[in-house]
Amino acid sequence: MDFELTDRCKDFQERVGAFMDERIYPAEAIYAEQMREAGDPNFHPPILEELKTEARARGLWNLFHPHKEWGPGLTNAEYAPLAELMGRSPHLAPEAMNSNAPDTGNMEILTLFGTEEHKEKWLRPLLDGKIRSAFAMTEPAVASSDATNIETRIERDGDEYVINGRKWWTSNALHRNCKVLIVMGKTDPDGPRHAQQSMLVVPIDTAGVTIVRGLPVFGYWDREGHAEIVFEDVRVPTSALLAGEGEGFAISQARLGPGRIHHCMRSIGMAERALELLCQRSLSRVTFGQPVADNANIRDWIAEARIELEMIRLLTMKTAWLMDTVGNRHARVEIAAIKVAAPQVALKIIDRAIQVHGGAGVSDDFPLANFYAHQRTLRLADGPDEVHKRTIAQRELRRWETPVTREAVDGTRAAALVS
Amino acid sequence: MDFELTDRCKDFQERVGAFMDERIYPAEAIYAEQMREAGDPNFHPPILEELKTEARARGLWNLFHPHKEWGPGLTNAEYAPLAELMGRSPHLAPEAMNSNAPDTGNMEILTLFGTEEHKEKWLRPLLDGKIRSAFAMTEPAVASSDATNIETRIERDGDEYVINGRKWWTSNALHRNCKVLIVMGKTDPDGPRHAQQSMLVVPIDTAGVTIVRGLPVFGYWDREGHAEIVFEDVRVPTSALLAGEGEGFAISQARLGPGRIHHCMRSIGMAERALELLCQRSLSRVTFGQPVADNANIRDWIAEARIELEMIRLLTMKTAWLMDTVGNRHARVEIAAIKVAAPQVALKIIDRAIQVHGGAGVSDDFPLANFYAHQRTLRLADGPDEVHKRTIAQRELRRWETPVTREAVDGTRAAALVS
Amino acid sequence: MDFELTDRCKDFQERVGAFMDERIYPAEAIYAEQMREAGDPNFHPPILEELKTEARARGLWNLFHPHKEWGPGLTNAEYAPLAELMGRSPHLAPEAMNSNAPDTGNMEILTLFGTEEHKEKWLRPLLDGKIRSAFAMTEPAVASSDATNIETRIERDGDEYVINGRKWWTSNALHRNCKVLIVMGKTDPDGPRHAQQSMLVVPIDTAGVTIVRGLPVFGYWDREGHAEIVFEDVRVPTSALLAGEGEGFAISQARLGPGRIHHCMRSIGMAERALELLCQRSLSRVTFGQPVADNANIRDWIAEARIELEMIRLLTMKTAWLMDTVGNRHARVEIAAIKVAAPQVALKIIDRAIQVHGGAGVSDDFPLANFYAHQRTLRLADGPDEVHKRTIAQRELRRWETPVTREAVDGTRAAALVS
Amino acid sequence: MDFELTDRCKDFQERVGAFMDERIYPAEAIYAEQMREAGDPNFHPPILEELKTEARARGLWNLFHPHKEWGPGLTNAEYAPLAELMGRSPHLAPEAMNSNAPDTGNMEILTLFGTEEHKEKWLRPLLDGKIRSAFAMTEPAVASSDATNIETRIERDGDEYVINGRKWWTSNALHRNCKVLIVMGKTDPDGPRHAQQSMLVVPIDTAGVTIVRGLPVFGYWDREGHAEIVFEDVRVPTSALLAGEGEGFAISQARLGPGRIHHCMRSIGMAERALELLCQRSLSRVTFGQPVADNANIRDWIAEARIELEMIRLLTMKTAWLMDTVGNRHARVEIAAIKVAAPQVALKIIDRAIQVHGGAGVSDDFPLANFYAHQRTLRLADGPDEVHKRTIAQRELRRWETPVTREAVDGTRAAALVS
Repeated sequence: MDFELTDRCKDFQERVGAFMDERIYPAEAIYAEQMREAGDPNFHPPILEELKTEARARGLWNLFHPHKEWGPGLTNAEYAPLAELMGRSPHLAPEAMNSNAPDTGNMEILTLFGTEEHKEKWLRPLLDGKIRSAFAMTEPAVASSDATNIETRIERDGDEYVINGRKWWTSNALHRNCKVLIVMGKTDPDGPRHAQQSMLVVPIDTAGVTIVRGLPVFGYWDREGHAEIVFEDVRVPTSALLAGEGEGFAISQARLGPGRIHHCMRSIGMAERALELLCQRSLSRVTFGQPVADNANIRDWIAEARIELEMIRLLTMKTAWLMDTVGNRHARVEIAAIKVAAPQVALKIIDRAIQVHGGAGVSDDFPLANFYAHQRTLRLADGPDEVHKRTIAQRELRRWETPVTREAVDGTRAAALVS
Repeated sequence: MDFELTDRCKDFQERVGAFMDERIYPAEAIYAEQMREAGDPNFHPPILEELKTEARARGLWNLFHPHKEWGPGLTNAEYAPLAELMGRSPHLAPEAMNSNAPDTGNMEILTLFGTEEHKEKWLRPLLDGKIRSAFAMTEPAVASSDATNIETRIERDGDEYVINGRKWWTSNALHRNCKVLIVMGKTDPDGPRHAQQSMLVVPIDTAGVTIVRGLPVFGYWDREGHAEIVFEDVRVPTSALLAGEGEGFAISQARLGPGRIHHCMRSIGMAERALELLCQRSLSRVTFGQPVADNANIRDWIAEARIELEMIRLLTMKTAWLMDTVGNRHARVEIAAIKVAAPQVALKIIDRAIQVHGGAGVSDDFPLANFYAHQRTLRLADGPDEVHKRTIAQRELRRWETPVTREAVDGTRAAALVS
Repeated sequence: MDFELTDRCKDFQERVGAFMDERIYPAEAIYAEQMREAGDPNFHPPILEELKTEARARGLWNLFHPHKEWGPGLTNAEYAPLAELMGRSPHLAPEAMNSNAPDTGNMEILTLFGTEEHKEKWLRPLLDGKIRSAFAMTEPAVASSDATNIETRIERDGDEYVINGRKWWTSNALHRNCKVLIVMGKTDPDGPRHAQQSMLVVPIDTAGVTIVRGLPVFGYWDREGHAEIVFEDVRVPTSALLAGEGEGFAISQARLGPGRIHHCMRSIGMAERALELLCQRSLSRVTFGQPVADNANIRDWIAEARIELEMIRLLTMKTAWLMDTVGNRHARVEIAAIKVAAPQVALKIIDRAIQVHGGAGVSDDFPLANFYAHQRTLRLADGPDEVHKRTIAQRELRRWETPVTREAVDGTRAAALVS
Repeated sequence: MDFELTDRCKDFQERVGAFMDERIYPAEAIYAEQMREAGDPNFHPPILEELKTEARARGLWNLFHPHKEWGPGLTNAEYAPLAELMGRSPHLAPEAMNSNAPDTGNMEILTLFGTEEHKEKWLRPLLDGKIRSAFAMTEPAVASSDATNIETRIERDGDEYVINGRKWWTSNALHRNCKVLIVMGKTDPDGPRHAQQSMLVVPIDTAGVTIVRGLPVFGYWDREGHAEIVFEDVRVPTSALLAGEGEGFAISQARLGPGRIHHCMRSIGMAERALELLCQRSLSRVTFGQPVADNANIRDWIAEARIELEMIRLLTMKTAWLMDTVGNRHARVEIAAIKVAAPQVALKIIDRAIQVHGGAGVSDDFPLANFYAHQRTLRLADGPDEVHKRTIAQRELRRWETPVTREAVDGTRAAALVS
């Protein structure tokens, strides 16, 4: 049992911290100004490219990628404190260091399941930060939290696959640099539940791909965009297939582990920043003759924030360590646990920081309302809390299901069906 | 003890309900479309004027105004169920029936404290729905939850008052029809704490009044706007004074009672609509082989929503009844109580409705995210929860402070100061 | 809409209040002393009989009974504020005024469904406070929250019924004066779900009735006792039947409405007393140089307590009013609502009062720990919260179930069964 | 970063686990029976001595003691998983393995601050499990959460100290084997706040020591007892002094660190056992045609329990590791954090387990109600939550207090005092 970070990790932590202090935080106002001037929520502001150049020059690039070939090859546990720092400035830092969702997940999929052609055409420019990508899974017509509900059809026609369906919440698809979509659909709708789906790599400019609209999040029109996309007789060569037919569900599971933990790491960073703002504001404002920080209710909020942050950070670290040591599959329950807990801890802290800021807290003079919208959405993205809790409870109950209780239960169910 | 609504109230309830069903709800899509087309968040869409005309024709006008002269002269308890209905479509219904904040509060102030000139020039067109108004109290530089912090200066110079200061969260000031501001500032900064403030009626186009910017709320740019306004040597005649010098704090207290309870009534309506949406969505979506509504956790949410809604509605009704029978002043604790409780009940229900809607819930395809932003802001508007709880606790403790405990307490305090 | 209590109610409120102040509170220490001296948790202390005599002399007797013949004939809404007062001293006041559970419910059942013989033999002495009674429904072997699970068998044998089964949580059965049990069992285990049960009036000294043991509640051995009872070939004449065979479930439903609301009324009284104690203690104790009451977190607790108490009292009053005006059956959802909400409000307040009292709070120097145990148990007695929420949600969802959603749902269920 | 336990720890974990399975759990019924038969809550049942003999024979003795001389010399991080196991059977396992509160803390104090005479006379028999001890700090007359409130006087009179005062919640003092008290009092009431207190080792049979009574906890009369003790002119030789005059506060701080973390470790064990019981009960009981465990609300409870348990266990482990690596003093914030969080996590889980057990949950047929009472008390013992949160918040705010904010704050305070 050793809670010390590795030296390599501490070195990167210091360097990322310095980059945040020297370049990222000062760039936030510039970013806001460039976006405001552009008057286009999907504008790609020049400051971002400057930051990318600088980050790469500092060796702070592709920090997320576990493979040495493509970056420093950090473990998940080493990456966690870095992603946390990035989360403190979520609109700039992750993209500046080429470690932003959903590209990270897509890069991992392409690394693991892509053909040489995929790697050459899409993975390399993604790792170079030249293009961006999106992941088209969720559908408006069905409850996508149950992945087997997905209705998009992929039909083989000679050397081609033909895609028909409607997706939404395809994040990043409105990014100016987005060039490629990874699309999930059913090749075998009547097959076994988890073998119906397949995944294709689809250039965004393929004929039949129509971006219908972007979706706002609590009034925010995110720069990268959350798109509703119609696929109408979209044809791609069979070489667009990732892994094999029927492997889509398995790939999505492989993809979601790292994606989810990265989100949680950033959530912790956002919550830390919110707590800082809460403390600073409460020290600087005075009501009824004393600083707001001198009220015991505010102090309770601060203490609870610190306690919960330490707890969720440790659980996230342990989950990362499990992924590193026993593999993503065996960290499934822990990944589900942090996916539920991290946004909730963050939301509670951000909400209280908003409360201490008064009207300023819900405006954009502070990043709090935006953080809130972001974290609230995370309770839905990659599956709602309830689906993850279901997973955790199932595993827990399985420890106690004896053949006897199982039989009793099944007997009851059978009886219930009849009555 | 009789929980039956009056016949007059039930009659209005039916008529407002019919208006909502026949005109307001169908108008929501038209409104959204007209706003989208305009591409200007402060656009005044034609549909609104149509609805106003129709509401007036139906006798559904100035329902909030307790004075018979200006409307039907309903009591607060009779108005409550009507305001609740309006709250179900907060961007259309209150304005359509000329019963929207902050105009209602301003109309009450002008009725109670305005001169004949004020009434002729501002109250009448407000009651006619011809113009709109705003209330400039909160300031960016100080914690305005403690009203004695306010720094805007009002100085007498001959027949004029000269105003200097900076306000923000002046809601409605960006409304196309907004013509007048009620401004609070200090005429006697060294006077007794609650006699330093005065209130002036200031035409929005007076020289020296500069609207610096609008403020977003969780990414939403409300049509009526929340303005930051600079007052620089703004001169108004002394006749602009409401009541008398030093009466500002007292007027603001008088204003806030009805304003707060109206907010709460609408909160209940919003929460009811969110609960409806939650039920409908959970019945129509299927996961893991059963409708979402068949899950016991969702059923718990529904039951808790119903319980909490009934409770907060009753407390709001009782508060209205107290205001009607013993006066706003003696309902002070109850007003503070609903101001804390109603938005919290609403937020919990809306949040759970969002969760059941998945990604759709945080978008604008449903009104839920917007309701959430609105209600979250209400936990700050007109004083943060903590200030209202302070009021309630003080009153409660006073019942138990004996001379003995008082003395002990004061002794302790004195000792603490010395040490 | 009128929140004023009736004059008759206010008169009784004053008289019960005076009785509490003059006799009940001063008797608490005497009661504790007599119980301690006796060294027997089921001892019947003389002070109780004195209080009963006094209460009867003051006309404060059978206040709960809606029928004029047996008491003042108060409505539920009139009784509510009186039961609340009684709840402030739960071990003395309800029994002193002959209005304690489970006797009140049993007296109602006997009034409504008893034969003349039952009334003469059991109801009259109960109304006179000469004997006590118990209600044997819950069983240790099955989840009794689903009443159809009950396994006790009642078989007809000539002119007799023969009872076999095991009950527990038969409260009051260890009371020194307990003479009669009302027993629920199945006369027709294969009949329709809600027509299998019947109810019998069984003298506690009938051969075959064995009280196996008493059950503690959080370490407390309540004076009235919670018994586990075995019925082994217990024979009673067929005249012991209440109403008719198969009417047991219906009677239990009729019984539970008033019983549940009475519990809630007393919960409010207990919570009010806890809040008083919290305020007093926080004013009298000093930490870090100021009275505990001066800390904003404690003030938040006080304010939240006041808010929640007002809300739950109003919902309880409205429920009582509904029972009075449209009948218990049509108040079913509201009864379920307060049954869930009242103990939760009370528990939160009591818990915080304990916290402010420190070690004294969990001891018996204050009534708080005992109140807590009592209220915690109430979340299970007469059905756990979850069963009541289920009822409320079902009713709420029924409003939105269209034939279309119903069919979709049933289709899904059918499909789920097959897969 | 390594979350693996040491081999030594895993070896002990296995051995303690085996001892629990083979001896402790089976002994619980025997223990209950022996206590019941004795009819004396402070009886010392023979089974306990048998378990002690067995534990010692298995080398499971004094596991808590960090010094090799007295036990296996485990680190805090190594001891944590073992104390967790012990917590699963709190009335038997800790005492059986000679690792129970408050003796562990007292043994540590005597090890660190005791004279050779103290060690010979008290420490050795304590480490041998021959005697027990108690710690007399809390007083009934003052809020002892602020340790400077303590009023017991210790006056030097020649070669003796004379003690006068009243203590309560002196746990263990009613244990049949309790022979010695460590008493905190003021030798210099007018000295600097944290140098007024001293600590004495006082044989329990010293003249003038009167045990007034035991205190119940939620109705439970714990075997070891929580005593109220009067000290009236109690004389001990000056050699009874621990460390030096004025060192009492410092010793108490040194003592409380390990004591608090041990409590938290056991809390986790209790919560784990409650979760097991919850799962088992929910699988075995059927309502409305399905096992209780099939309800999504119960599954949510299980998942939340698992998430929160993992988080609090990790924070406790990290705190132990900090104590091992940087010392108790530097782990102060973390110790405060787990002291707040662990009982709350445990209480939530135990409460839900009670709910799933129905009436059985509040009785003594399961250990749940007793666990609840125990954990609830822990939110007060060694300082209420609010005092620990105060510590945490102070540390957090100190990071953000610039000279400027400090000055502003002090200015405000000064102004507040004057006004």
